[in-house]
Amino acid sequence: MSELPQIPIAFGARVRPSPFFESTLSHGVSAFSIYNRMLMPTTYEGVEVEYWDLVNNVSIWDVGCERQVEIVGPDAALFTQYLVTRDVTKIKPGRARYTLICQEDGGILNDPVLARLAEDHFWLSLADSDILLWAKGVAHNSDFDVEIREPDVSPVQIQGPKSPDLMQALFGTAIRELGFYNFLDVTLDGVPMLVARTGWSGEVGYEIFLRDGSQGGWLWDRLFEAGQPYDVKPGAPNDIRRLEAGFLSWGSDMDSDTNPFEMGLGRFVDLDSEADFIGKSALSKIAAVGPTRRLVGLLVEGDPIVQGPLRRWPVTASGEAIGFVTSASWTPGMKRNIAFAILESQFSAEGQKVHVVTPDGERTAITTAIPFEDPRYRD
Amino acid sequence: MSELPQIPIAFGARVRPSPFFESTLSHGVSAFSIYNRMLMPTTYEGVEVEYWDLVNNVSIWDVGCERQVEIVGPDAALFTQYLVTRDVTKIKPGRARYTLICQEDGGILNDPVLARLAEDHFWLSLADSDILLWAKGVAHNSDFDVEIREPDVSPVQIQGPKSPDLMQALFGTAIRELGFYNFLDVTLDGVPMLVARTGWSGEVGYEIFLRDGSQGGWLWDRLFEAGQPYDVKPGAPNDIRRLEAGFLSWGSDMDSDTNPFEMGLGRFVDLDSEADFIGKSALSKIAAVGPTRRLVGLLVEGDPIVQGPLRRWPVTASGEAIGFVTSASWTPGMKRNIAFAILESQFSAEGQKVHVVTPDGERTAITTAIPFEDPRYRD
Repeated sequence: MSELPQIPIAFGARVRPSPFFESTLSHGVSAFSIYNRMLMPTTYEGVEVEYWDLVNNVSIWDVGCERQVEIVGPDAALFTQYLVTRDVTKIKPGRARYTLICQEDGGILNDPVLARLAEDHFWLSLADSDILLWAKGVAHNSDFDVEIREPDVSPVQIQGPKSPDLMQALFGTAIRELGFYNFLDVTLDGVPMLVARTGWSGEVGYEIFLRDGSQGGWLWDRLFEAGQPYDVKPGAPNDIRRLEAGFLSWGSDMDSDTNPFEMGLGRFVDLDSEADFIGKSALSKIAAVGPTRRLVGLLVEGDPIVQGPLRRWPVTASGEAIGFVTSASWTPGMKRNIAFAILESQFSAEGQKVHVVTPDGERTAITTAIPFEDPRYRD
Repeated sequence: MSELPQIPIAFGARVRPSPFFESTLSHGVSAFSIYNRMLMPTTYEGVEVEYWDLVNNVSIWDVGCERQVEIVGPDAALFTQYLVTRDVTKIKPGRARYTLICQEDGGILNDPVLARLAEDHFWLSLADSDILLWAKGVAHNSDFDVEIREPDVSPVQIQGPKSPDLMQALFGTAIRELGFYNFLDVTLDGVPMLVARTGWSGEVGYEIFLRDGSQGGWLWDRLFEAGQPYDVKPGAPNDIRRLEAGFLSWGSDMDSDTNPFEMGLGRFVDLDSEADFIGKSALSKIAAVGPTRRLVGLLVEGDPIVQGPLRRWPVTASGEAIGFVTSASWTPGMKRNIAFAILESQFSAEGQKVHVVTPDGERTAITTAIPFEDPRYRD
């Protein structure tokens, strides 16, 4: 189906609004999804308009749905290490890392950003799966002396080339020195927050982790005031830009049926460290023999794709099924259709011609590297 | 806010459509929520219209989002017992039970229907939280010899006083003998399914657990053909009817911060059995002293409530905060506003006058028993 009807979202008590909810309504949010049982704005003026806002200026995203799992206590470092695939001993307080959480067979349960607030104090900033339940389950009947909880923390992303200007207006010039994946524990007008050089845009950007849910409207207004000279606009995680940049979406491109080596995320699995973590043994075996499937990029021919796959689109070569497309979009920047596909490894080399079976018919596609941003593909 | 704007839901690869998705579009679904990371239709012609369909005739609900956690293996019964608050030894194959899943402190993680397919084969039919992760986490590093997985099972509910007629047309007269919370493992035209005398409507009803996700459209059509003489209509879990009937919604009325005794669900906690389950020790202590808060019904004065709480509404008595409203609706059957509230126990007796602080102002309310269906309130 090329175009789906516009159908309203149901509002109700089961799905939480973020502290920025009323602000996003005032700014004209025009579509919502639900992520970690919270309302998540997905667009205001349209994903293509917001693509240009993001690559040219600065966008503010309500990502309050990125819930935090807070781990504290004497065994916080050991327990956090047991959950994540990165070597936690290499993460100093004030630093964050992108990491994976895997189950015993190596399947990916989430790909959070792990922040170390202190030696024995961690946050996992989650993609769309309930790692609070996983962490509590793993801790149950274990010897780890930890507390695991969801704190009052609501992230907002400030992304785009003018985001450093906006952030400097609020936090002063020191913010420009903040290293990639570093963060600061600060207050603004007395309101506590972490400010991190992180984000999901492929552009320069920041996340503010608001530590007082009653101050969402206030923070939103402060961000828009500070951003006015820089053409600040409301936005949301941009599916076009993240595809270009090669960012995977948990639940779309990967899940517990895929492993990090299939996804090209092996560099985030510290097999050679002393670290003991769930899935390490299975992942060592997969790393030794190599994955049987691989995530690849596809350049897809034909008219602009207006709706990516709701159900994975089959990919064929010489009439045989060889995998499926997980995400797909037209990009106005590259003036092309781009997609992610998981294909049998023997078809994953660059430059292979394959066919994508969409609900509207078959399209030819060429395999390519991820990210797509290589200048060869820029036009 | 009394009325929220109509804002479309975003369709994308992260949120799965059920096998009935295309059928629900054809039947004119007019709002979606997301439940267990799946699209869930919430209404077609409006919740009040569907209330009358449900109490007078028969409705078909796409509840494919009720995901199943399947537990099999030599220790399946022991492990399932460890997760749930009911005495599993009393559940024979072919029987199901409403149960709770609690964490160590007694907080409620989910309220599934537990079905025993065989001595060593169970399904947990979930409310909106990812018990697959909880179960896998608890099983990790344990001695239980079990497999835990999500099978290809998609439930659909057939609810209302004419549902036995519809079901008889498809499955024969034997279906009328099926006891409450019993189920049959059957095929229809060769397609495998469980048929259960369960549902979430407070009316007589059934659930079909389709065991082949490719046959959703076919089953939907068969149900509507069979239901045509009985004025069958598409519907969804009906918030009005479930409030009248006193059915709690996990995520709205209860969550990990509430325990079964606060919720009036103590009869589903088998403290006196030999069963060993997570939370039993904490729940025994709570049962001994009694809960400090209790879920009560409220009859709320004033105009019909058009939008229940997105954020819990405070409840006050003599100007002091004594709790909050979790769910609220106008009911056309009782011609009243009804609500659930969690109040400090000393305010939970019937007939107390309290105040509900809605975003549109304060309303007077009277505490009452749950369910509301007592003839005193029928008019």
